[in-house]
Amino acid sequence: MKDPLKKIRPEILKISAYLLKPHPYSIKLNQNENPFDAPDFIKEQLAMKVLQRPWGRYPDFYATGLCQKLATHTGWVPEGITVGNGSNELLQLALHLVLERGKKLLLVTPTFALYRIIGLSNAASILEVSFENFHEFPGRRLLETIERESPEALVFCSPNNPTGTSMDEGMLRQILELTDGLVVLDQAYHEFSEYHGIEAMKIHAHLVITRTFSKAMAAAGLRVGYLMAHPEVIRQVNKVKLPYNVNFVTLAAAEAMLDNFSSFVRPIQELVKERRRLYREMSEIDGIEVFPSQANFLLFRVRDAARVFGALQQKGILIRDVSSTPGLENCLRVTVGLSHENEQFLSVLKESVP
Amino acid sequence: MKDPLKKIRPEILKISAYLLKPHPYSIKLNQNENPFDAPDFIKEQLAMKVLQRPWGRYPDFYATGLCQKLATHTGWVPEGITVGNGSNELLQLALHLVLERGKKLLLVTPTFALYRIIGLSNAASILEVSFENFHEFPGRRLLETIERESPEALVFCSPNNPTGTSMDEGMLRQILELTDGLVVLDQAYHEFSEYHGIEAMKIHAHLVITRTFSKAMAAAGLRVGYLMAHPEVIRQVNKVKLPYNVNFVTLAAAEAMLDNFSSFVRPIQELVKERRRLYREMSEIDGIEVFPSQANFLLFRVRDAARVFGALQQKGILIRDVSSTPGLENCLRVTVGLSHENEQFLSVLKESVP
Repeated sequence: MKDPLKKIRPEILKISAYLLKPHPYSIKLNQNENPFDAPDFIKEQLAMKVLQRPWGRYPDFYATGLCQKLATHTGWVPEGITVGNGSNELLQLALHLVLERGKKLLLVTPTFALYRIIGLSNAASILEVSFENFHEFPGRRLLETIERESPEALVFCSPNNPTGTSMDEGMLRQILELTDGLVVLDQAYHEFSEYHGIEAMKIHAHLVITRTFSKAMAAAGLRVGYLMAHPEVIRQVNKVKLPYNVNFVTLAAAEAMLDNFSSFVRPIQELVKERRRLYREMSEIDGIEVFPSQANFLLFRVRDAARVFGALQQKGILIRDVSSTPGLENCLRVTVGLSHENEQFLSVLKESVP
Repeated sequence: MKDPLKKIRPEILKISAYLLKPHPYSIKLNQNENPFDAPDFIKEQLAMKVLQRPWGRYPDFYATGLCQKLATHTGWVPEGITVGNGSNELLQLALHLVLERGKKLLLVTPTFALYRIIGLSNAASILEVSFENFHEFPGRRLLETIERESPEALVFCSPNNPTGTSMDEGMLRQILELTDGLVVLDQAYHEFSEYHGIEAMKIHAHLVITRTFSKAMAAAGLRVGYLMAHPEVIRQVNKVKLPYNVNFVTLAAAEAMLDNFSSFVRPIQELVKERRRLYREMSEIDGIEVFPSQANFLLFRVRDAARVFGALQQKGILIRDVSSTPGLENCLRVTVGLSHENEQFLSVLKESVP
């Protein structure tokens, strides 16, 4: 039998698979999911679509309806928008346009692990600038590195997962003026923050913004995201995007959610309020350093992360242990949940830190 | 404003976008869709899932349930299966494992246009061996080319879209013995044919098979496909596959369809019967050469494709004009529809060929 891995590129073989260890839980605060569900009338609308629409026919080729609604929702042009199965799919495509062996991808770390995997799978060199603190992006070192290395692609997650750090508009503009690489701003969590980035895109055609329905819109189960960019960039992304990538159910759900965006506003406000409360209360606990966050999660440092994670897990509260990530020694990440979930989390947390 | 295309790889800029010209129709026979819908009880099951399942939670990380059912369905091992948004997504990932600038992708043409686009977007060189006739794959020239060029990846669509040609097992085994490239067998249409290919995969670990729910299972609207390979290859595909790529609705639909596969058997048989009838009747029309097909479509050549396409379109019957593809001069492709749709197609066809 021939070796099935013989022709597989060596950088792929070297990537370690992303594995998720399943843990039992009663309160799930480990994946930055939104604990509020879509309103029943939206679910009922979608159930009707599932019953009535013939399954055998391909979805819309252009997803025109959804792109139009996204344009109205965001204030960007419809021909500057494309949709995918989560923003990850679109991020992958945007980077694939630019990266290959010998090209450079710049990241500010620690950040969402997928950017690195996408870079590696395209055989790119990864340049990492690490955060100096989690209150702001490391401006000076970032600009120096861009000047010295001229990376072909740059990805910034803002608010950043898992640190919660937001990039401010001034810094984004300085970066855009300095680089001619493709700048991807991943705004998965932007609805929980204040900055939207659309104005910068009007001036800088090499800025690409990705967003998702998984967080603020509480639709992680449906996998839908969108990418906004200069229409010329969208044309290139659409060339490598697979035709009919998003199924009819997801398209219809996303349209229905946008039509009823007002239903999602209060849950978002509630989560922001709970994040502030959690931050305040955690700040007062001895032995915990909690970092400010513009997202629906909080990063915090304890003396013994394994012990705190274990104590929470024993009580059925599942959070994310990120302490093995370089720069995140003894750090844990907790998603903002429903009020009573956050309450229980706080109470077990207080008991578990000595 | 900076040029947003400056860093985009030149081979991407050169790809011409895949566009679909929308035509009005009353009978749609242009996309190899299955005209039978899923049974109502399956649709009702899925509608319940849409209502009851919280949308805000991510889908299964491993799609274990679906892979297990696919293993039972196909006779392959569950750890040798991975699922995606249509088989296209998985085909793209499998080729991405192997291809980059300087690597070769071998195709037998004319075939499904996407393979070439995937190859080009990975900066690979495309080697094309053209069909000598549409009754069989061009065995001798194919083997000679493989020996001379040692391509890193080979894709065969069998039954081939749009020619309907099947690769026989003997030829597939000869190819597998000769090459150590990754061989992808796209079996999107296999349920309408006789050959399943699982046995060859047991002996040849560098054979990868992709399949879809879009054709025989009448679920093109839901976008679900799967890839079968040696578990070591699956491990590599899963490294570059995005986590949570398939949403919960699609996963649940695919499981429900497999649980009730017997409901899909009669429609498949009906389509095969209709294909045979169409082939017979079209063979008897003067001025038409129809090619044998193992799929749910037929390729045929007329004296003036534009004229025949236009005449059908005028009567609201939409088929696919493939006559601009090299090797398919004056050829058209018709999907096998419902009996009365095929009847109308035949009757307009007869009038339109002189």
